Amino acid sequence: MSQATITSVINGVDVDRLGATIQAVQQNTSLATFQFRAKNRWITGGHNRSTIQSFYGAGQEDTDRKKPFVLDSDEPPVLFGKDHGANPYEFVLHALAAGLTTSLVYHAAARGIHIESVESTLEGDLDLQGFLGLSDQVRPGYKEIRVHFTIKADASAEVLKKLTKLSPVYDIVSNPVPVSIHIEKQ
Amino acid sequence: MSQATITSVINGVDVDRLGATIQAVQQNTSLATFQFRAKNRWITGGHNRSTIQSFYGAGQEDTDRKKPFVLDSDEPPVLFGKDHGANPYEFVLHALAAGLTTSLVYHAAARGIHIESVESTLEGDLDLQGFLGLSDQVRPGYKEIRVHFTIKADASAEVLKKLTKLSPVYDIVSNPVPVSIHIEKQ
Repeated sequence: MSQATITSVINGVDVDRLGATIQAVQQNTSLATFQFRAKNRWITGGHNRSTIQSFYGAGQEDTDRKKPFVLDSDEPPVLFGKDHGANPYEFVLHALAAGLTTSLVYHAAARGIHIESVESTLEGDLDLQGFLGLSDQVRPGYKEIRVHFTIKADASAEVLKKLTKLSPVYDIVSNPVPVSIHIEKQ
Repeated sequence: MSQATITSVINGVDVDRLGATIQAVQQNTSLATFQFRAKNRWITGGHNRSTIQSFYGAGQEDTDRKKPFVLDSDEPPVLFGKDHGANPYEFVLHALAAGLTTSLVYHAAARGIHIESVESTLEGDLDLQGFLGLSDQVRPGYKEIRVHFTIKADASAEVLKKLTKLSPVYDIVSNPVPVSIHIEKQ
């Protein structure tokens, strides 16, 4: 007997493949191990450039990417840079926006929740007294980040909020991540 | 009597202006208040796009940027995307690399330490069992991030490491940041 193959795509996500992946990971948890990577090179002043290409995941090195993503970061003139790119704190906001949105869309797809549109605005409060070492009472990083989503979808705001908060980036920003730094002098 | 003006630039950073800014902030701490922003729009699946332009800082809205920085994020095929950009977890690594490097370069300049070159490689370990909700024992975010710097500069590895760790992004990733999420249904 021949079998018809129907691919279910919800929110642009192939939910059949997502389901098969979840089953495969349940049977072999090592498939869930990923290592992401970035290389960065200083150019001058606040200007530096990352290249991002290879990663390990699902049991093997990924070879799909034929060329790297190239990302420039710089500071604006008021922070002694030349605006060759968004600054590092703005990249944190982008990473968070992208992570929350992707988590929402993927987890909604897995639950059969259809999403029509998602927009978000993010604000982060930074007091430079911390970075400049002018006060021990002020942390160098963001004091607070506020995210405002506008979403068209067939689920309640409470459910949608819960799905955003499953994001790895939400965890990374909200909770401590151990960062080890090794310096090799040339 | 006329005065000669000598601008001191170290590591591409105008240290005279940096020193004047630190003095100004010491006299009026409200100048250290910055608010950075991002807007994000979902496209489909894992693909979404941030625009970053305006920010508040040094007592006023910044108007130097005539057009926004546009950043695309997506997942690779193995994670059900189409690789239209680095993924959110890779953007975290870029933000961290850029932040550590900028902190090193700026704080070195303020101390008269000359830097010739800075390169870094970053690795982050992510176990997708957390994101997929398959284990309560596995966090969704990075378990650990390792940063390896190769630096040519006239200071010890210990001093250089200390300067990287003054970065706001190091603080954001290493320590908890409060993130508030508000959902508006359309």
